[in-house]
Amino acid sequence: MRISQLSDATGVPVPTLKFYLREGLLHPGEQTSRTQARYDESHAERVRLIRALSEAGGLSLARVRQVLDALGDPPSSRHHLLGAAQDALTPDGTTCDPEWSAFARGFVDRRGWQIRDDEPLIDLLGGQLHALAEAGIEVDDGAPLMAWADAAESIADADLSTVPDDPAAALRQVVVGTVLTDPVLATLRRLAQQHRSATLFEEK
Amino acid sequence: MRISQLSDATGVPVPTLKFYLREGLLHPGEQTSRTQARYDESHAERVRLIRALSEAGGLSLARVRQVLDALGDPPSSRHHLLGAAQDALTPDGTTCDPEWSAFARGFVDRRGWQIRDDEPLIDLLGGQLHALAEAGIEVDDGAPLMAWADAAESIADADLSTVPDDPAAALRQVVVGTVLTDPVLATLRRLAQQHRSATLFEEK
Repeated sequence: MRISQLSDATGVPVPTLKFYLREGLLHPGEQTSRTQARYDESHAERVRLIRALSEAGGLSLARVRQVLDALGDPPSSRHHLLGAAQDALTPDGTTCDPEWSAFARGFVDRRGWQIRDDEPLIDLLGGQLHALAEAGIEVDDGAPLMAWADAAESIADADLSTVPDDPAAALRQVVVGTVLTDPVLATLRRLAQQHRSATLFEEK
Repeated sequence: MRISQLSDATGVPVPTLKFYLREGLLHPGEQTSRTQARYDESHAERVRLIRALSEAGGLSLARVRQVLDALGDPPSSRHHLLGAAQDALTPDGTTCDPEWSAFARGFVDRRGWQIRDDEPLIDLLGGQLHALAEAGIEVDDGAPLMAWADAAESIADADLSTVPDDPAAALRQVVVGTVLTDPVLATLRRLAQQHRSATLFEEK
């Protein structure tokens, strides 16, 4: 299809498509003349992915590019593939107070979670828990943190039970699923809070 | 305490504190001379809250102000209070395709969740599910969505079980807890995915 048809198929304006091509986010079409190129379904799918990550997922174009780079070269084992997807999604150079880093590591160890030693998510978690504590919300191995970890395990099971066998499709699903479903979970949590609050607190 | 001591107590530089005062995010201190004012623990607590919401929570200062306005005038029932907190956190003017709005409403109804008719979170959820579907991830009443809703209910129970009786403290906990714990949940989910993936997929 021509670029105008790619635009119709994806709902993305031609100038934006040209921007994606210039920035290398979208692979070039097959040149059919000096000024025209032909695009196919792989281009439409890539455009929809870029939109999903940047619009719905709220990722910067620089991070979209990192994610696309990871998607372009998927590792062959599904476990390493998950690592690659998560690396592309985790902010670089996260550091936190060593005490909180140790707390986060201790927490996942006590849960029995197998997490590699240099996993940057540990420091990310440490920093997030530190922020909670600074805001006056108690953080220990007690109720809320354990309940969240239980919930995270159920969600991870649901996430992984639907990962396809094909590595490229699997990576795409993990990345897109993670970026796009974090907001869904946040919204469901608020709705569930309203429902429970209506049951628990509302005056009759 | 003087502004320099407030700065020491909170770790926030004096020029930033002056900015918060100018912008009305921080209530004025008690004027002790033409150029000096005295601050107390209520100022330190407010500064920590602003930092938590803007730095760790990633809220814009405009939204921080909305949240602070809601905190300044807490409703008396804990159920309405939750609504006020959530209103301050929900982006304004969210709209979505009516078909997806209806799907989201149908979903919460089928879950038996009591949600008010004009709840803006319904359209927010509809838009998020629409984005998932556009990215090629199947959305129906089946496995992932139901598993997420189950997890959301457990999390909401944990959230609400620790809400204090005092309305102002309760509102603060709900708002801060929601803003600061969404990222914690997202990180725990990734860690749980890694753990499950190591168990399920890793080559021996």
